[in-house]
This record gives sequence, structure tokens and C-alpha cells, in this order.
Amino acid sequence: MRIVLLSGGGGGARFARGLADVLDPGALTVVGNVGDDVEVLGLHVSPDLDSLLYTLGGLVDGERGWGRADETWNALESAAAWGGEDWFKLGDRDLGLHLVRTRALHEGAALSEVTAQLARRLALTARLVPASDDRLRTHVVTPAGTFPFQEWFVRRRHEDDVDDVVCVGAELARPAAGVLEELAKADAVLLAPSNPYLSIGPILAVREIREAIERRSARCVAVSPLVGGQAVTGPAARMLSRMAGGTTPRHVAERYAGLVDVLVVDELDASADASVELVATATLMRDRASERRLAEVVLGVACA
Amino acid sequence: MRIVLLSGGGGGARFARGLADVLDPGALTVVGNVGDDVEVLGLHVSPDLDSLLYTLGGLVDGERGWGRADETWNALESAAAWGGEDWFKLGDRDLGLHLVRTRALHEGAALSEVTAQLARRLALTARLVPASDDRLRTHVVTPAGTFPFQEWFVRRRHEDDVDDVVCVGAELARPAAGVLEELAKADAVLLAPSNPYLSIGPILAVREIREAIERRSARCVAVSPLVGGQAVTGPAARMLSRMAGGTTPRHVAERYAGLVDVLVVDELDASADASVELVATATLMRDRASERRLAEVVLGVACA
Repeated sequence: MRIVLLSGGGGGARFARGLADVLDPGALTVVGNVGDDVEVLGLHVSPDLDSLLYTLGGLVDGERGWGRADETWNALESAAAWGGEDWFKLGDRDLGLHLVRTRALHEGAALSEVTAQLARRLALTARLVPASDDRLRTHVVTPAGTFPFQEWFVRRRHEDDVDDVVCVGAELARPAAGVLEELAKADAVLLAPSNPYLSIGPILAVREIREAIERRSARCVAVSPLVGGQAVTGPAARMLSRMAGGTTPRHVAERYAGLVDVLVVDELDASADASVELVATATLMRDRASERRLAEVVLGVACA
Repeated sequence: MRIVLLSGGGGGARFARGLADVLDPGALTVVGNVGDDVEVLGLHVSPDLDSLLYTLGGLVDGERGWGRADETWNALESAAAWGGEDWFKLGDRDLGLHLVRTRALHEGAALSEVTAQLARRLALTARLVPASDDRLRTHVVTPAGTFPFQEWFVRRRHEDDVDDVVCVGAELARPAAGVLEELAKADAVLLAPSNPYLSIGPILAVREIREAIERRSARCVAVSPLVGGQAVTGPAARMLSRMAGGTTPRHVAERYAGLVDVLVVDELDASADASVELVATATLMRDRASERRLAEVVLGVACA
């Protein structure tokens, strides 16, 4: 069985870990969002790929939900004291990854090559691929202006309402090597319970990825990131309310119109209807067991 | 009184601190060696300028003699685990400086501009200037081959004998802004008790610096790095034995022929003679008080 998952970090990464736990080694390919990528202190940072790497590789700080466990923050504190930027939180252990990746990129490696090398270091059983090796950057349009994603998300604490999301570079971006091949071979395509606008949207903004899913023969199943119409973390519910007019399964499903066959929603959202088939289950991932349980339910739906 | 000191890190930096302690604010300009500069993990590292910054700014690890106090090593450990190089020891706090400087250099700033900004952050009373803003790299010629300085010094633990020292780029290197002006205004020029081949040599390899000292009107006083014919740390004595034929004051003075009026040597080396005037005093810097005492003696000789 071959499964392709489109995912951001956070909840998407936890769902990816659930899938990796229950699937055979080599069965899972995770296509990670790169719209959040950012240059910090001259280093290339790929927050979603890193969350996926750290979560799948057992390095993630479980409490914080991002970055590495047993982290220290001395380099960033020092950089700030020398006049460097410190708005984007990079821990010391985290920096080791960014240093190695940035140098590899400067030496001409593609992001997908570096990502594969990093995944090999962790002996991941899943394949991890960025949506694109090309530069693709999410910008958010707000009443206060248009901002690069991290500028809005971190620096402005995602307090501005969002009127639109623009993926700069998506027009020209090609899928990274392997993405289309894996989609063509997949027995099922899954969209993680990540933010539809900010995490899944920028992956689908790569035209060839979107088209490959539109003309899929395998089933495509999305998992809603909402529980009872609310986001577990982050601005998904606020964005859906403002841009889609609501936070019911129908509003989530509309984000994926023409792309998914089934939307898996939480039991709290079960009574709603939508333009696609709905399957209700407990979607909140409290621990490894609930991650695996959700993965099994979704795989059951996808491979029915 | 205006004093210019040519210096490497280590003992040179401690001597610089002694001078800064006893001179009026603004009186001291330290011209730092950049022949040891190296790119590590994609970052520009200037070990001698950093030792000078850290020592003059009170950040140095006194025990280790280099790098920062209260240091942690998590980024380097992480980088190594991801396949990055870890032969050159960069601590987390130290990395903060390299990140900020590297980005400034990539954005087009000159090394001397960045160094001045860093010195301002520490509110140093001394001016710190790299010998050159141009690329200048020390290589050592050994029976085992020719190596870039840090390759030999750190990676090969400076175990190979040295037959020659070559400053690649020195032919074309211009003095950094301010160096010639300070030399012209100086009431005295001092050469720190640093390695004559590896620390002072690469500064003097910049033709215009050497010529400015050759035609000096101010007195030029060098401090020998040897005590009883032995190096306090590092390979100075071994190098002098092999390349100059001995480790007496005469052998040290010959390194600076035509450049210095007086060589300050340790009392243990007092009975020797040399081609220049010798002044004997206790040169071992055990603590801040002995740094200051040596500084006062040398200033007394220089401004006699």
C-alpha cells in the first residue's frame, strides 16, 4: 500500500507520525509545505519540514509542539546582543540543522535532496519531500497590509484578520522530484488536519500537484483540522469564518472542492452536511495512541 | 598618547587588555591578525579578532583562554549529527557572533565595519581593526604538505613541523580603513607577545603596513612570546627552532629586523644579546595585574 500525505507542521506532523506508526516502512510519502520557509540570520529555515522531521524522528519538543526537546537558546540570545534579529525563535540544537542545510543549499543541492539526506540521518521509515524545490512563499493579505507569512504569524502574532492568502512563486514552482511519481503510484492521497489556507493551500498552489490530485484515480481523503468548529491551535477557524463564511465541515470541504472524495471530521461536527462524503470520528490527537487510531480510521476510509 | 598594537589572539589579547586597562579611553588601536580566518559551516570566523573582542569585552572564557564563558555546544553537536563539520569548535554563544557577522559580510559590509560595530556593542575603550578587509589566508608548508592554517592548527593539531608560512592574498591585500592613519599618528607601535610567524607575520605581510612601520618615526617595541626560550602556549618555540635556528631573543628579533627598536624579553632570557636593544622584565601574564604591569613596562620603554 502506498500513501501520499500532504501536510504542514503541528497537527499535520502528528498525524503523519500516526500514519508512519501503522503503515509498513516505505509506504508513506509526506509532501511538506514550504510556503512558511523563511531566511533567519542568513539561514534557510523550513518550519514545516522541520516539524515533520523532528516529529517523525522523535526529536520534537512534545510540550512546545515545535522545535527540539532539551533545547537551549544561547546562540539566538548572543546574536540579539550583537544586533542580530531574534524575532524568529531558533534554538541551539535547531540551528545545527539550519546551518547544515543552508550550506548544502548554497553549494547547489536542491531542498528535496537535503531533506532526503536529513531524513536518512534519522532513519525515517517515511519519505519526506518538500512540495517544491523552487522558491514559494506564502503572503497574507490583511486590513493592515500584505505580509510575508512569518512576518504576520510570528512578528505580528497572527493578530490581523486575513482577507486572502497569496503563494508568491507558485505560478512558476514545479513539484519537487518524486512528488508527481508518488502521487501517480499512490493507493490513497491524504490531506492532513493542517490549516487549509496556510499549510495545505500552498502545496496545492503548485499547479502540477493540484492537477495530479484533480485527475486522481486513487481516493483522496482530507482530515478537518477543526473540532466543534474550533481550531485545536492556530488561526484556521478565524480564517475560515472570515474568508469562507463559517467553520462547519461544508466550509472546510469547499476549500478542497474537486480534490477530495471524503472529509473526515470530528464527532462534534458530525451532524453537518457537505458537498463530499463525511466520516465522523474522534480527531483530537492527545497522545501517540490517538494519533495511530486516527491514522487507522483515515486509512480505512481511504482504502475502503 | 596614541598607541597601535599589532596582535593575534591568546597572549596578544591579554596584553591588549593590559594596555586598555592602563591607557586613556581611545588611546589604543589594536590591529588584529586575519590570516587565521576560516569558513566553518558556511560562517565567517575570525578567531583572533574574536579573541580580542571577547578578551577586551570581558566575555572570554578565562580557563580555556578562547571562546566565551558559560558556553554550550549544542548547535555544533546537532550539526555534526546532521552530517556537518565539527572539527572547528564553535560554541552556541560564539555562533551568535558568527551568524551576525556573516550576514553583514554577505550584505556587503567590510570586515572592519562589522568589527567596529561589534566593538561598539561591547563599549570597548580600544579601537579594534582587522589588518585587512581583503581576503588573506595563512598557509603552512610542512613535510606532509601545505595546509590552510586552521587545517594544520586544529585538524592536524599543529603536529607537523613547519618549514614556511605563506600568506595567501597578502600581495594584493590593502590595509583596512584606519590602519595606516593610526600608524601615522601613533606615538608608539607595539608588537604583541604573539607568534611572530603566525600572528604578527600575516599582519606585516600586508605591504603597506610593513612599509609604514619600516619608515616609522615613532618607536616600535616588540614583546617576545617566549619565556626561557619556551612558548607559553602554542608552536612558536618549535617554529623558531626549526625555521630560525633557535629560540633566543636574537632569533625573535631577527623576525622583526628593520621593524623594531626594542625587544622586550622575559627575565629568564635577559642574558642574551640581539641586533636590537633588549629590555628584560617579567612577561608571563598570570592575571589582570601582571597584564597591566607588563603593559606599563612596555609603554615605559616605547614612550621613553
